[in-house]
Amino acid sequence: MPESEAVQDILCSEKDGNGILRLTLNDDRRRNALSEAMLLKLKEAVSDAAKDAAVRVIILAAKGPVFSSGHNLKEMTAARDAPDRGRAYFSRILALCADVMQGIVACPKPIIAEVSGVATAAGCQLVASCDLAVAAETAQFSTPGVHIGLFCSTPMVALSRNVSNKHAMEMLLTGDMITAARAAEIGLINRVTSSQALQDVTMELARKIASKSSLTLAVGKRAFYEQREMGLSEAYQYASGVMVENMLVHDAEEGISAFIEKRAAQWRDK
Amino acid sequence: MPESEAVQDILCSEKDGNGILRLTLNDDRRRNALSEAMLLKLKEAVSDAAKDAAVRVIILAAKGPVFSSGHNLKEMTAARDAPDRGRAYFSRILALCADVMQGIVACPKPIIAEVSGVATAAGCQLVASCDLAVAAETAQFSTPGVHIGLFCSTPMVALSRNVSNKHAMEMLLTGDMITAARAAEIGLINRVTSSQALQDVTMELARKIASKSSLTLAVGKRAFYEQREMGLSEAYQYASGVMVENMLVHDAEEGISAFIEKRAAQWRDK
Amino acid sequence: MPESEAVQDILCSEKDGNGILRLTLNDDRRRNALSEAMLLKLKEAVSDAAKDAAVRVIILAAKGPVFSSGHNLKEMTAARDAPDRGRAYFSRILALCADVMQGIVACPKPIIAEVSGVATAAGCQLVASCDLAVAAETAQFSTPGVHIGLFCSTPMVALSRNVSNKHAMEMLLTGDMITAARAAEIGLINRVTSSQALQDVTMELARKIASKSSLTLAVGKRAFYEQREMGLSEAYQYASGVMVENMLVHDAEEGISAFIEKRAAQWRDK
Repeated sequence: MPESEAVQDILCSEKDGNGILRLTLNDDRRRNALSEAMLLKLKEAVSDAAKDAAVRVIILAAKGPVFSSGHNLKEMTAARDAPDRGRAYFSRILALCADVMQGIVACPKPIIAEVSGVATAAGCQLVASCDLAVAAETAQFSTPGVHIGLFCSTPMVALSRNVSNKHAMEMLLTGDMITAARAAEIGLINRVTSSQALQDVTMELARKIASKSSLTLAVGKRAFYEQREMGLSEAYQYASGVMVENMLVHDAEEGISAFIEKRAAQWRDK
Repeated sequence: MPESEAVQDILCSEKDGNGILRLTLNDDRRRNALSEAMLLKLKEAVSDAAKDAAVRVIILAAKGPVFSSGHNLKEMTAARDAPDRGRAYFSRILALCADVMQGIVACPKPIIAEVSGVATAAGCQLVASCDLAVAAETAQFSTPGVHIGLFCSTPMVALSRNVSNKHAMEMLLTGDMITAARAAEIGLINRVTSSQALQDVTMELARKIASKSSLTLAVGKRAFYEQREMGLSEAYQYASGVMVENMLVHDAEEGISAFIEKRAAQWRDK
Repeated sequence: MPESEAVQDILCSEKDGNGILRLTLNDDRRRNALSEAMLLKLKEAVSDAAKDAAVRVIILAAKGPVFSSGHNLKEMTAARDAPDRGRAYFSRILALCADVMQGIVACPKPIIAEVSGVATAAGCQLVASCDLAVAAETAQFSTPGVHIGLFCSTPMVALSRNVSNKHAMEMLLTGDMITAARAAEIGLINRVTSSQALQDVTMELARKIASKSSLTLAVGKRAFYEQREMGLSEAYQYASGVMVENMLVHDAEEGISAFIEKRAAQWRDK
């Protein structure tokens, strides 16, 4: 029974008719921890979606009161029994986790985090790594590694590329939980809704983006993160080149014509 | 009749007695589009002002309900008839546009955007490229390229150097318009006023800055954008050098003496 | 009488039983100017604290209505009498000041600014350079160099790494004072309290951080500023390595075990 298997899967995947892929962390017994199994599932799912022309936008959600608690500490602790005290395992799991986070950034489809619960440590990093994030008032965020002697050093890579230094440092040094409202204020997420409205608001955002040319979104998302790491002059040279190529594809010619002719554009996603 | 010519000019230029140059986009029939002609006018005006000792501060305003709608799409579309489908023209116009935006950043005089209407695409980029921006409550901002299959890749260079990643991505992926109040919240502009007060508030800000030593402003503006692209240690080494040279010019010696002696400073702008 | 000497010291130092070192600028007659003597005291105090295992967190406070007015202009002016018109002295004092600011960033102990008064120029830079900052409603901030012909070029290095470009430029080009509330809004400080509550709120924050493993804090603080200057991919490679090493130290093993076993962790700070 593939259906019941899917239900038991720690990462659920649903594609709708509008090109919206909904990935749901579904391991609430383990607080949706980013265990090795979960990271592998996420990596595969995002990588598959990147290649799937039927997917236009990805929503990353979670089941239960915890969006994700980050790394699976019991799994990590078990690795300490190895002769190298876990070094090889820790290296592997952290490289895998960094792969997943960078895979989200590199994925040509826009990815929206839909957060109803608590997102901590690498769970908070997951939200920070998405292109957009919508949260319910019940959502909370923290990088609590200092509580357990393990600074949230990889989560802070994503966190500090979203919020200002002082705000990031407060979360990192205290480990304190912040509310969804505060997360919106400091730029970690885009907006806060009621719990009831969360799915609808996220879906509306996803549908709006899914109605655009997939090629245009892919070109733009990639260019965004590339140019962010350049100086101004290099960024302009790079982005101007991107825009010239964009002008020459079908969807820009069609989109601009449709705009001038006041009609709806017909994307070919190329 | 040069006066009526000036009135018909697509970029009006007025210099007042306090060293404030007011440049007004004056092509509201074309929604103040950044056509090739407009870009050339802007480039020339900013370049001239950079060399004009009588100009201390520049205000960039626009006539009509649209501050600027960005590139002239009809002009761009016409270029598709060329044998290269427009590639050479697109490259030229985008290089020119990037020149104008970087010319604003490189201009030794502070430049303030005064925005009463809608600023979209490269029009939004123009606001983002200015050192400061004041907007009326009626102003709105967007990077709507996704609507026409042409991602706002060059506008995002300026946008993403003003607002956080998630805020920039929301504008870029949705193409949605944001209000002036929201633009102030996310750091795209400095402040919002009533429509009635817009000119006064902008002029007050301009006059305040125009009362400073032009040399000091030029030294500081340049150093600001230069050090922004450096690591902390390099930035301190560079900025310390800038400050030593600044200490040794007339206006710093005069300014510090005047401060200690509790009198008004007499700038020589050197 | 060493006690009265300590009282007259321009930088007071008090260590409490919880590992909290309180450094107080104590030269309110000179508006706590960052004179050469004060900079040398600060450099020594932070450097000593960096090596002192009994110090876990540093609070940087000031006596009187002015937190710090920045460089000592009379001292700077006196140097103009030298044959080189002060060049060597200005270079030395600015290098020393940059050393102090970078020493705060490089210090392995978290440093919290506690600001009850006016912080201007290099005084504002001092606040911006701290990891965290709490301010009373009475606090105010500015980079007023333009008033005296001397652009706040070194303060802006710290300022522009805390607040967005337009907000930094407004402070730098106008020299205007901003309130504590505005400083919190733009990300220059973490939070605002009443004057009465300032010390308590800062101490509570300091105690919370002091209760963490000092090693973990040192590892994390260093990694934070290092990775901030890297591209995303390099930052992940670096931070993943930091986290693997962090996993292998005593305090992470102890912290994670304590968390799993639901007991309090016993840090060894190694």
